[in-house]
Formats: sequence, C-alpha cells, structure tokens
Amino acid sequence: SRSINLAVIPGDGIGQEVVAEGLKVLSAVLPGDVKLETEEYDFGAKRYHATGETLTEADLDQLKRHDAILLGALGDPSVPSGVLERGFLLKLRFAFDHHVNLRPSKLLPGVATPLAGQPEIDFIVVREGTEGPYTGNGGTIRQGTEHEIATEVSVNTAYGVERVVRDAFARAQARPRKKLTLVHKNNVLTFAGHLWSNTFNKVAEEFPEVTTDYLHVDAATIFLVTQPERFDVIVTDNLFGDIITDLAAAISGGIGVAASGNINPSGAFPSMFEPVHGSAPDIAGQGKADPTATVLSVALLLRHLGYDAEAERIDAAVAADLAERAGRAARSTSEIGDALAARVAG
Amino acid sequence: SRSINLAVIPGDGIGQEVVAEGLKVLSAVLPGDVKLETEEYDFGAKRYHATGETLTEADLDQLKRHDAILLGALGDPSVPSGVLERGFLLKLRFAFDHHVNLRPSKLLPGVATPLAGQPEIDFIVVREGTEGPYTGNGGTIRQGTEHEIATEVSVNTAYGVERVVRDAFARAQARPRKKLTLVHKNNVLTFAGHLWSNTFNKVAEEFPEVTTDYLHVDAATIFLVTQPERFDVIVTDNLFGDIITDLAAAISGGIGVAASGNINPSGAFPSMFEPVHGSAPDIAGQGKADPTATVLSVALLLRHLGYDAEAERIDAAVAADLAERAGRAARSTSEIGDALAARVAG
Ligand SMILES: CC(C)[C@H](C(=O)O)[C@@H](O)C(=O)O
Ligand SMILES: CC(C)[C@H](C(=O)O)[C@@H](O)C(=O)O
Repeated sequence: SRSINLAVIPGDGIGQEVVAEGLKVLSAVLPGDVKLETEEYDFGAKRYHATGETLTEADLDQLKRHDAILLGALGDPSVPSGVLERGFLLKLRFAFDHHVNLRPSKLLPGVATPLAGQPEIDFIVVREGTEGPYTGNGGTIRQGTEHEIATEVSVNTAYGVERVVRDAFARAQARPRKKLTLVHKNNVLTFAGHLWSNTFNKVAEEFPEVTTDYLHVDAATIFLVTQPERFDVIVTDNLFGDIITDLAAAISGGIGVAASGNINPSGAFPSMFEPVHGSAPDIAGQGKADPTATVLSVALLLRHLGYDAEAERIDAAVAADLAERAGRAARSTSEIGDALAARVAG
Repeated sequence: SRSINLAVIPGDGIGQEVVAEGLKVLSAVLPGDVKLETEEYDFGAKRYHATGETLTEADLDQLKRHDAILLGALGDPSVPSGVLERGFLLKLRFAFDHHVNLRPSKLLPGVATPLAGQPEIDFIVVREGTEGPYTGNGGTIRQGTEHEIATEVSVNTAYGVERVVRDAFARAQARPRKKLTLVHKNNVLTFAGHLWSNTFNKVAEEFPEVTTDYLHVDAATIFLVTQPERFDVIVTDNLFGDIITDLAAAISGGIGVAASGNINPSGAFPSMFEPVHGSAPDIAGQGKADPTATVLSVALLLRHLGYDAEAERIDAAVAADLAERAGRAARSTSEIGDALAARVAG
C-alpha cells in the first residue's frame, strides 16, 4: 500500500493558517489506500527566541527521513532580517540541494491582474536554487567605519548551471509550446553570463525541438508586463529568479496564488513546497490569509511524488474556485480551504 | 557670455537618429546668448571593428574637457555581448565616477501603460553607478570544462554607498512628498545589505523631514505594478537599479520616453545623459525611432548644467506632444524632433 510521510513546517504568521488548509485539501484529495503521515516541526521565530536555533544538524537528520516537506512561511519583525532567511530557508535549500526552484505562473480566468486587457499568462520559471549570489560568500571589513567594504560573491559552477539548464530544457520539451528563455545579464556579468550562455547553447543541442531565446534580466521585466504571452519556460539564476518570480506572481493573480517547489530531482533529499508569499505578520491570526498558494504548492508536491491525477484535481478545484470569486463576499482562510477540500473530494 | 561645450556620441543603430533630434531641440531651446559648441565622437561598433578600440585613455582625456556628454546608444549584433557594454558604457561611467544614475519615471497624460486603470506614476530612481556587481570583479577558472567556476563580486563601500544615499535623500527632501525608499535584498545579501541599510538609517537622521521606507527588490517589483503611486524617490544598488528602472520605464510609457543621467555631482568629470533604450538595430535607419527619451535626457542635461527654465520648457513640450499623440498618425523620428523643437522655441 502507498504512503506519504510528510514533514510539515507551519512557521510564523499566516504560515500556521495556510498550512492547515493545505493539509485539509491534501487529506481530502488522497485516495483511501494512500496512508498520509505528517510530522509537525516548530521552526521559526518562536523557536529562535526560545533556543537561539534556526536549523540544526539534528533537525536536518530528522527532516531527511520524510518524503517531502510542506512549509508555510517563516519570518517575524522580532527577528533581525536575514536570520531566518539565511539560517533556515536558505540553509535547508542548500543542505537538501534544492537546485530546481520551480515557480509556475498562470493567469486563471476570473483572476484580477494589474495588467490591462487580461493577457495570456502561462509560463513556469525554473530558478536555480543553490548557487549565484545566494551562497553567502562574501564578507565585510572595517564594519561600521567610513572605510567599510562589503562584498557578495555570486558563485556559478558548470555542474550547477548545467543540471538546472537541462532540467528546464526537459520541462520545455514536455510542454506544448516547447520554448525556453534564458534570463541573465551576460553583457555586464560576463564571467557568470558566459558560463550560463555557453551551457545553455550546449544543452540546447540535445533538445532540437525546443525553441530558445535569451533576454537580459532588465528586458525580461519589460516583457513580463508588456508581452507576458511570449514566455513558456524561463531558466535563470537564483537572484534573477527571485526577482522575476515575484513580478510574475504579481501579474498573474498576486502572491495569494503563487506556489513554488524547491526540488531535488535526484530524490537524494526530500523536496520542499511552499507558497511564494511570506508570513504577513500584519494579518496573521485573523483568518484573512488566502490559502490558495499553499494548496497549489500541495499540488506541486503531489506531482513531484507521482500523484499526477490528484494534483490535477487540486489545480482544477482552484481554477473553479477562483472563477467564482468575482463579486462574491470575501471568505475566511478556512472557508476557502473547506471549499477547495469539498471540490477535490467531490 | 554663457556657453555649453558638449561631447556628442551618437553611437550605433538608432543612436544616430535620436541624437540628431536631441541636438535639434537643444539648439532650439537655448537662449541666443548661450553659445553651444558640440564635438562628435565616433565610438561604437564601427570604430571597434576598424581599430579594436572601445574607449582609450586618450579618448577619456578628450571627453574630460567637455561640460557634459550626450549619448545615443551603443551596441550591435556584430559585436560580442559585453564588449561595448563593459569596454565603453561601463568604462566611462566608472572613469568619470558617475555614481548617481538618475532615472525619472512619470506617466504623462495620454501615454499608454500596460497597467490597468491609468495609475499615478511619478517617481525617480537614484541608482548607484560605480559599484555593486558592476565592478567587473570576479573571474573564471577551468573555463569550458565541466569543472568551470565563474564568480561575480559585488563590491560595496561605505564611501560609495553613503554618497549616493545622501544624494537621494537630498532629492527626496526637495520634492513635495519627501519620501525615500531603499530597495535592496538585505535578508539574503546580508553583507552588502547591512552596509546599505545602516548607511541609509544613519543618513536619514540628517533629513528628519524625509519619510523612509525599505523594500526587498523582489517586493519592489510587485509594488511597481500594483501600487506604483507609493514611490517618490527610490535609492538602490547598481544591479537592482538596472532591473527596476527598466520595469519602471515599461509601466510609465515605455523605453521610448525613458531618460537617464549618469551624474558626477562633484563636477570633477562631465556627466553623461542618455536614453534608457538601446541601439535597436532592427529599426535603425528607418526613421521609426522615438527621439523623446533622448530629448528628455537633454532636459536632464540642461538641469544638471543649471538651465532649469530651459529644461522645464522641454519637459512641457514633451508632455504636450505626448498628450496629442493618441489616435494620430505615426510620425517619423525627425517629425517628432521638429515638433518638439517648434514647441520649445515658440
Ligand atoms: C525569504 C527569501 C530568502 C526568499 C528568497 O529570496 O529566495 C523569498 O524571497 C523567496 O523567493 O522564496
Ligand atoms: C547596456 C548596459 C550595460 C546598461 C546597464 O546595465 O547599466 C543598460 O542596461 C542600462 O540600464 O543603462
């Protein structure tokens, strides 16, 4: 019999509320013969204040035993900026080698966008997740003086770039339009840029059916708002991916519906799924958060574990729910979760 | 009697066409007692192919003697990516210490935007121009092998950050809304991020009337499309500034109307003014390019040299011209230049 052994990290702020709804929908969608086991972990601001810990080696050993991880959001104004981001989120992505950071953007019917004229938006961004300016390389000398110098080193390896580029080509190959756009800034960041461009061009030879394109990151932001329909699959580095996926979320319904997967395709470590949004402490505990992004992240999780039909049912339920929202009264976090759970079960 | 001694760099592609119109409007707006001297330089793809040179020490010595520089655009598909960017554009910005890269965004009445509902857009971005990931620090080892490693080093100094932050505060102080937003990614790029944030908070004490705000660069791209009215002045690093100013241009009329100044406020070296757009080789030589961004760059140039009234007249002429465009037949590059020249003269 089949089973899913899930690590659940609600985290801070609205993370708690949205993860509860994600689990509700997950339970509802799974067939009776699939045993769902969940173990909850208390990472986040509370634990940091109580113990000073963000993520220990022992924690990683525990998390490692799961099939996948569902995360809400981490972050609280009481914790200095960077502590939970570097000490937990990025540490986990790096420790579990989550090199494919997958972020789909699809503007569903009935969903509001800040763009005029309801453009066609349906693309995925494959963001590199373990290299680039995110490595934490760099440092500061003469801190606090007028002679301070602070550096950040973007580290790019042939190994790291090639595997994510190949993953993106395979995803493009599997989509109807079969188009892949490399986004970088190779006219300025020439060292990293040439590695990315050369690798991209080399791997392209293995995928003759995939149409390729290149855009500088600054130009990509222009096209995202003027011609979003030109994108099918985008592959890009960690920092550029961070920036353009927030913009992509904004134009395709907002971060309330933006899902993401931090994927290790080899399966050597569990992959982690999380909404793109943060912990939103200003609305936490009020039942105002939209759990849709978390529910869609659960669909990514299911697809990753091979439950494609169940993932489809969640996607369809979300699409139906969003299509009916316009003009309706606002619902609470759990009301939206209930509605989605009812749809996937039905 | 007054005089302006201008270096003119038409450059490649549409650069030639738009600079001609910029000069036309400049001549028309200047009062009779101001002597305008221009010297044209042939930098760009042609010279690179003929001599292998992009910008020599002798060139810099010549350029140094001018009061300001007007540049069209550099770049051609025949030149490898990065050669003219690093070898000319960035070399000049660095050599002349153009640390204030000024990019205003204003959505003028009648101008099309990809955003729904004609939002209020009127802000300026003060982009640092001499540091960050643009320094060219970094390198490649084992190039072309499966063990290649390429790095890019973002270099940030207290000296460099403080002067641009102070410049931005002064600009915010001089505007009616007096609001300054720092854009960075201090939760991930913690070394550079802390230098930027600490410097920002320290300089803020000298400007008690200025309201301050902080946004991560990814969140900034969201707000640029969902609430652009929240921005008044933005200060940010070189790379983030590159990215968000293209997005800012896209939402406020497109790069056809986006002007920029590469400013050395000390006056130790001439400042350079250029449209944000590139050389657009696909439409070069056809009279299709919109010279408005160059004309607005001429206004920035005039303001920098103390000709405020003349700069205002150009801005007003552009606003009037744009307001009348909707529904009219398209005009050629020189027709738009003629119309603007007539307006500023009249
Ligand atoms: C919170 C932060 C570390 C993170 C990132 O920059 O990757 C977030 O913005 C994201 O996109 O998942
Ligand atoms: C052409 C390139 C070097 C330049 C930059 O990245 O600064 C351009 O994009 C700009 O914004 O002026």
